[in-house]
Formats: sequence, structure tokens, C-alpha cells
Amino acid sequence: MNIAEQNVINFIRENKERGTRLLQRLVQEGSIRGKESKAQAVIIEKCRELGLELDIWEIGDEELRSHPAFCSDRKDFSGNPNVVGVLKGEGGGKSIILNGHIDVVPVGENTAWKHDPFSGHIEDGRLYGRGSTDMKGGTAALLLAMEALIKSGIRLKGDLIFQSVIEEESGGAGTLAAILRGYRADGALIPEPTNMKFFPKQQGSMWFRIKVEGVQAHGGTRYEGVSAIEKVMLIIGGLQELEKKRNEELNDPLFSRIPIPIPINIGKIQSGEWPSSVPDLAIIEGRMGVAPSETLEDAMSAMETAVSRLAESDAWLSKHPPSVEWFGAKWFPGSLETDDALVTTLAESFAAIRNEDPVIEASPWATDGGYLDKVGNTPVLIFGPGTTRLAHETNEYIELDQMFQSAEIIALALMKWCENVQE
Amino acid sequence: MNIAEQNVINFIRENKERGTRLLQRLVQEGSIRGKESKAQAVIIEKCRELGLELDIWEIGDEELRSHPAFCSDRKDFSGNPNVVGVLKGEGGGKSIILNGHIDVVPVGENTAWKHDPFSGHIEDGRLYGRGSTDMKGGTAALLLAMEALIKSGIRLKGDLIFQSVIEEESGGAGTLAAILRGYRADGALIPEPTNMKFFPKQQGSMWFRIKVEGVQAHGGTRYEGVSAIEKVMLIIGGLQELEKKRNEELNDPLFSRIPIPIPINIGKIQSGEWPSSVPDLAIIEGRMGVAPSETLEDAMSAMETAVSRLAESDAWLSKHPPSVEWFGAKWFPGSLETDDALVTTLAESFAAIRNEDPVIEASPWATDGGYLDKVGNTPVLIFGPGTTRLAHETNEYIELDQMFQSAEIIALALMKWCENVQE
Repeated sequence: MNIAEQNVINFIRENKERGTRLLQRLVQEGSIRGKESKAQAVIIEKCRELGLELDIWEIGDEELRSHPAFCSDRKDFSGNPNVVGVLKGEGGGKSIILNGHIDVVPVGENTAWKHDPFSGHIEDGRLYGRGSTDMKGGTAALLLAMEALIKSGIRLKGDLIFQSVIEEESGGAGTLAAILRGYRADGALIPEPTNMKFFPKQQGSMWFRIKVEGVQAHGGTRYEGVSAIEKVMLIIGGLQELEKKRNEELNDPLFSRIPIPIPINIGKIQSGEWPSSVPDLAIIEGRMGVAPSETLEDAMSAMETAVSRLAESDAWLSKHPPSVEWFGAKWFPGSLETDDALVTTLAESFAAIRNEDPVIEASPWATDGGYLDKVGNTPVLIFGPGTTRLAHETNEYIELDQMFQSAEIIALALMKWCENVQE
Repeated sequence: MNIAEQNVINFIRENKERGTRLLQRLVQEGSIRGKESKAQAVIIEKCRELGLELDIWEIGDEELRSHPAFCSDRKDFSGNPNVVGVLKGEGGGKSIILNGHIDVVPVGENTAWKHDPFSGHIEDGRLYGRGSTDMKGGTAALLLAMEALIKSGIRLKGDLIFQSVIEEESGGAGTLAAILRGYRADGALIPEPTNMKFFPKQQGSMWFRIKVEGVQAHGGTRYEGVSAIEKVMLIIGGLQELEKKRNEELNDPLFSRIPIPIPINIGKIQSGEWPSSVPDLAIIEGRMGVAPSETLEDAMSAMETAVSRLAESDAWLSKHPPSVEWFGAKWFPGSLETDDALVTTLAESFAAIRNEDPVIEASPWATDGGYLDKVGNTPVLIFGPGTTRLAHETNEYIELDQMFQSAEIIALALMKWCENVQE
């Protein structure tokens, strides 16, 4: 590590309290959907302090709403802006987008939390609260890394484009809006909670709804009807087959340790209203995983074909084919090769700080990275502090040490990627 | 047919308008649950006119409520009495209970009816309305048969015990109350709509609820959870096997024309709340058919054993055994041999009127006959006008000719069963 790098690392190590306080303030402004403004105000204040060029805007214009990838049921985005803070480089270096989402998922049962979900309570090196892991810890790490570079007098050739976006948990309209506003770069880093793993590829996903018809009858003469429950069981069986086939066909080494890389999850089933009636309608809803190597359309077509083949093999279903709908949000998969410069640059910094190589996997969930990759045409790596397991849970927390360590790794990587002028 | 019999038949044939008017008035007093009093008033008036000994009482005393077979969620029975009208015989003959329920099921979507559901509209020999077939047509046939005997001056040795009970559609508390009040007889006839078939045996039934646990997880890593939907599918498969086995073991010739004599109907399934979560609870509700030859306890135990064996064969379920609950009403099966005097007496009258033998089957549904049989220890035959198919349907109607014909058959049978003194 050269002196410039050492200075940057030292800054982070000497300013842990600062970083902790920043995260605590972000968590305390509970930014559930529709209430992102106060947490964004904390971000804006920090960006101002760092002297970044600020771009603050309310998303939701016609260009966004009419984009084919736009997917949101939110009527009103006013008062809760996207925030971008740019540190212009001196020219000639690679640029990078540093993207974090400010929105958090609902807290669920308040009473189940040991502390108030927005307390930011600290105990045994952990900071508790909704959003601590997903992903205000990651965002704080980005800001801390940038602060360390700036305060250490580092001058970069390439641009740092810090983005604090809304709507990630509800389909990604915030990041899509930033892309449409023109923000592009040579690479992007999203510090979602990967527990310090590298996710160059991400599973995409879509929600489906399948409706199966039957014929009502009295339960005592159930043979006079057609049970929608029996018929939907055929469909569920078929989806299990499809999942098996799709995963067997996948031979990406990044998935080798994942039991079901692209799962088809049946999350919900509803049929019937009366114990002694034969139900005439069954509805299942679920989530279909999309492989990094395929398009959303490929995946849709795979399911629709499987369901319609299955229907053909059943006398009733062939005459009353089940309907397949795609509803709610769609998450694009992300796909970056492991030898991409973005991955190797981060891996080098990772090794410098942790004396080991990173674990490189494909993520089991999608991120806003799908938009950056598929719409913004920007290579994306997902790497950050905190564990997925805690992300949407009661008593969510983050290990502060992981947050600081990731800030160190990111700071070093930015010096290499965007090139330190002083080197 | 002797002259006395001929007179009785002639009375019925000459008084069709009277009979039709009686049924119409009964249908017009829409006696859905909790509003049975006005229809009972029509019954009471008719019983008075016929000179029957009346017993009118509000059910729901402690003896009823604490009886092991009592099954009702009704808090208040006041104002809507049971009605019994007795025609005492002169002694030495067999007695008979003539049982009809006055309660009708809800009308459903009012707007789907061609005429007002309680119009009693008559068109092409059919009388329309909720309760026309189930089972005010049968009750009117009983009263018409009794009137014919009385007006023709027939004197019987055995007692005629006419019962107009409430609550049949909700578990049979009305008939159970009549039994506990002391009404017993050498036989019982219930003119439920059998479409003129004889049902000496009836399928009993019970409602069950099975709960299966799982473990929640994110759909993208569904292998970290346990899907309650997948596990409940094993249970459903097991219930299908159980149904098959139970029906294969049944070799009653009365069931020979019935595809599934004692069905296990899954009427309802509910699991999950979110497409991209693994559901941690699945609930199915259904109706289990009970064979005439078995007890409710036999059937419960068959299902509980099957579910627990199934659970043992699955690693997860063996540690998290599904719960089986029995809820709502229970309907006892009924069982009478086809050579019982009650069946042969009715069959003889049937042949006298229709010049053919009756079709004798087991019914796919239970009636209040189960109580009369299992609690009242009274042999019961189900035979009446109207078809089951229309019973709980929109635009329910009865063919008036069937009602009159069944009155003729019943009148002749009563003369034989209770013995005509003048013979």
C-alpha cells in the first residue's frame, strides 16, 4: 500500500465515530416508501459537506412512466426526490456510479422488535434498525470512502457519481429514472448486503399469477364437478418440473454452491370458499427466478410454454387452459464476467485489506443493478456489508466493522478505477 | 286398491289447488335461518285445521345444548319454534314420524333469480322459490297425505307424528331437540328431494381442517425455507389415496351406481401472503363423507391415522405433524336394510301408484335421518319429490305433479304401516 492509500485507510479508521453517527442518522429517519425525504435530507447535507455537485429531482415524468421497463404502482413521487452527488474527475480516468437505495421495507410487527425499529441502537458493535443492513450501511460506506478520498486530498481522473435513489424495494423506478436522466459510467458498484461476497451476476425475477378453472358441485357428489384444487396441483407439479429442468440446464460456476440458482417459488395459493363445495377457481401467485444469461422474455416464454404443454396433457385443462399473468414488479438479472476489470480491481483492494480473495457468487436476488446493466449498459458489481438474511427481518442490524472494512476496500478500489492523479 | 284407498287417492287428485296453495304460502314465508316463525305459523294453522294435537316449543334448553351430538353456532332459538302435530291412532298399530325441515338456505344473488326467490311463482306445472324443492314440497306432500286420510274418514291404529323442525341446514338441532323431547316411533319418513328414489341409507359427513406448517424464507433462496404449499400437497395426495381406499373397501350394492360413495372433498385451500415469500402455513378445509356402516368416530380416526402415517414418511412433517380439526356441523349417516318393513311398505305403495318398483340407492348427502337413526333409534327412509340438483340453486323449483304423486304414495303407505281400522 502506498502512502496515499495508507492515508485514506487511516482516515477511515480514525473516523469510525463519524461514520457510525452518519449511519445512525440515516436509520433514524425511517424511509419507508413514500417517506424517503428526511433520510434524503441527511444524504444531501453530507453531499454538500463533501462539496459534491448535487442533482436533486422528483422522479415520475412522462419519459420514465412510458419506458417499457418502468414498473410501479406508485401514483405520487413528489416530495421524495432522487439525489445524485458528483465528484468530477480531472479527466482521462474511468468513471463509476456508486448506487445505494434509501427506501426501506416496512417494519412488520413493531412489538416484535427489541428496540424501536428506527432507534439506531448500538450494542456489541452492531447498529440496529430497519434499513441498517438493507442498505443504509452500504450507502454510509460509500460516503465514508468518498469522504476519506476527499479529506486525504486524493485527486481522481474519473468521475465519482454517487446516487441515493428511492423505490428499489418496489421495482427500481428510482435507478431507472437516474439512467434516463443521463447518468452513465464505465462501471457501477452497489453495496447491497452481500456479507462481503462479490456478486457479479444477479438472479432476476418476475411475479406470476396462474388461474385454473373448475366446476362447482356439492362435496357429497364431488364427481359431478371438477376440482380447481386438483387441477392446480397438476400445474404446481409442472412448475416443479420446470424449475428442475431450468436449473439442471444452468452450468454457470458462480451458481455451483447454490442449491436452486433460479427458483420458481409458489408464494400463495387460494381456492374455494366452502368446505363442502367443489371449488371452481384456484389462483396461485409466485416469483420466477431469471438467470443472468437469459432475458425476462425468455423466462416468461419458458413458463407459458410449460403451462400450456401441461394443459394439453389433461382432458379438462386442454379445454379450459389456465391463464398466466405477469404482475407487479420485474427485476432484470445482472451479468458481469468474473474477469471484468471492475471485478478484478475490487478483488485486488479486497485482498489488500483482508489478505484473502473474495468469494465470488451469483446473487439469489435482483438489485437495481439489473437496470444499470440492461438499460444503462453499465457493468455492475454488487458488493457490500451486512447479510441478506437480516435484510427484511425483525431486529435487522449491521456489524459496524463490516461497514468500515467495506469502506476501506471501496476507497482503495476507487483510487485504482478512477486513477489517482498523484500516483 | 280398495275403496278406502281409492277415496284417499281421489281426495288428493281433487284437491291439487289446495295443496298448491299450501306450498305457495310456505314458500312465500321465506324461512331462512333465524326467520322460521312465519312459515311455522302456516304449518300450525294447517295442523289446527286437521285437528292434530299440537306441540310448539322453542328449542335450545340445557339438555339439548349439552348433548354430545348437538352441533350449532346459533345463540338464540327464541321466537322460531319447532312444531309437532300428532294424530293419535286407535292403538295396536305401528307409529311413524313424518319429518320435514322448515328452514331454507340463503337465496344467494337475488338478481340471478328470474322471479323473486320467495314469489312461489307457478309456470308450466312448476312452483318456483327458495325451499320449494328443499323441502317445503315434501312437507306439503306429508300434510296433503294426512289431510286426505282425515277427510276420507280413515281411522288408523298407529300414531302419525308430523314434525316441522328448524335448523336442518345448519346441523340438525331441531330434529335432535324433537328426539330429546321424547318423540320416537316405529319408523320415520323424511320427504327430502330424492327425485322419487328411495334412500334407505345416507352418507354422513363431517368438516375437517388441516393445518400444515412450513418455514418462511425469501423466494429467491426458497431452499432456505420449507414451503407449506409443497407439504400440504403431500397431505392432499394422501387424502386422495385415503378416499380411494375407503371407497374400494365399500361393497354396498346401494352404492354401485355412485362413482365415489363417500368422497373426501377438499373445498378450500389457503396459503401464503406474498408471491416472493416461502409460505409458512397452509390450511385446507373439506368435507369427509361417512359410510352408513361406520360411525363418525371411525371416519375421524381413519383420517387422523392416514395423516399421521403420511407425516411419519416425511422428514419435515414427522417433526412438525399437521393438525387435524373437526369443526362446524357433523351429519350422522343413516342405515336401513332394503328389506326392512318400512322400505317394503313404501315400495308397495310406490308400485301401486307408478306401476314400477322404486330405484333404491344410498344418498350422497346426510339428512336429519341420521339423528333419528343414531340417536332416536328409529328406522328412517328418505323419499320425496323434487331433485337434489335444484336444492340450493338459483331458480329452485319443484314439479307439482311429483309432489302430488308422492302424497298419494305416502298416504297409501301410512294406511298400511299404521293399519287402517276400517280394513
